Amino acid sequence: MFTLIIGNKNLSSWSLRPWLVLKMLGEPFEEKHIDLTASDSKARILACNPAGKVPLLLDQQLRISDSLAICEYLADCFPAAGLWPDDIASRAMARSAVAEMHSGFQALRSELPMNIRADHAGFVPSAAAQADIDRITSLWDSLRQQNQHNGPFLFGHFTIADAFFAPVVWRFVSYHVALDGHTADYVRHMQQLPAMQEWHAAARAEAQ
Amino acid sequence: MFTLIIGNKNLSSWSLRPWLVLKMLGEPFEEKHIDLTASDSKARILACNPAGKVPLLLDQQLRISDSLAICEYLADCFPAAGLWPDDIASRAMARSAVAEMHSGFQALRSELPMNIRADHAGFVPSAAAQADIDRITSLWDSLRQQNQHNGPFLFGHFTIADAFFAPVVWRFVSYHVALDGHTADYVRHMQQLPAMQEWHAAARAEAQ
Repeated sequence: MFTLIIGNKNLSSWSLRPWLVLKMLGEPFEEKHIDLTASDSKARILACNPAGKVPLLLDQQLRISDSLAICEYLADCFPAAGLWPDDIASRAMARSAVAEMHSGFQALRSELPMNIRADHAGFVPSAAAQADIDRITSLWDSLRQQNQHNGPFLFGHFTIADAFFAPVVWRFVSYHVALDGHTADYVRHMQQLPAMQEWHAAARAEAQ
Repeated sequence: MFTLIIGNKNLSSWSLRPWLVLKMLGEPFEEKHIDLTASDSKARILACNPAGKVPLLLDQQLRISDSLAICEYLADCFPAAGLWPDDIASRAMARSAVAEMHSGFQALRSELPMNIRADHAGFVPSAAAQADIDRITSLWDSLRQQNQHNGPFLFGHFTIADAFFAPVVWRFVSYHVALDGHTADYVRHMQQLPAMQEWHAAARAEAQ
């Protein structure tokens, strides 16, 4: 059985991604938590991962660091699960979107950090953060328009691309980001997934 | 034939990665250049890529943004080329290393930006940049120790992991980073690859 070492569900956007993929796979796994607000958190993470990061996936002797590398590993382990789109062109588009999220959107990350319990009514993003928001929503729109005949996710059915933007869904909700109808539909759809609700409830229940 | 849109060879670390993979594949491709120091560079990039970044790979109608997504696409197009290690566990380790480079090492990136023509003799990294350097060299050592029976690259033969650290090779050279023997061997090996020499010569020949 897999073990996934993650940070606080309220705060750790990187942890949510592979957790959601494992849940959507229906694959049983053990969770271990490291409290990122504790003074010894860095030491605890380094003790299991020399990259100094969560999440970390343990599969027998294997220790896989980084949310994207973990998701790629799960796609390798479960090739029939459709974690990436089947056709090579759509898969490339999905990986482009995921890579853009993996290395970019610094203004969004720093100004709107994931904090599920927070309620930032009246929040006004800077121009740089608004540009990140606009880029993300236009990317979502363009992918969903191309793939809408297959379902409500970015590529029709659920893929790693949806998992990568799942923390943005919670940011858009807690920072009350103004969204047009198409984007609001996608946010609502993602928010209502049972696995997303389970994460949200656990984030709210964590020790403050 | 592929077209790869890249930035200045002297400066664009992201561009080097997929360029090197295409060269190591021996795959013919057309290069198009955008001068990142020109005042209209942002507009020129946005005109071909809404993500606002180079590199961009064009393959007929397909436009693939991001160095990692491009490399994954090439691995998909050429499954026999060994761009990732063959066995699933090593592939996961390679993707972990690549993902760590893709989203991290901020101190190294900001203090030691790739600038092939520069010669920073006497450069002293901050503690944060030195920690990044130490993490990279210890990662390289650990991968090469595990895979040394297969060749001189991180996973024995050339993979996307080597391409991802190729810009770090040029940084270590131009900032005169002190390296132990094992790491110096790897840097020298990478530096001497004909494709790396070709990139280096082109970087030196670019208009100042």
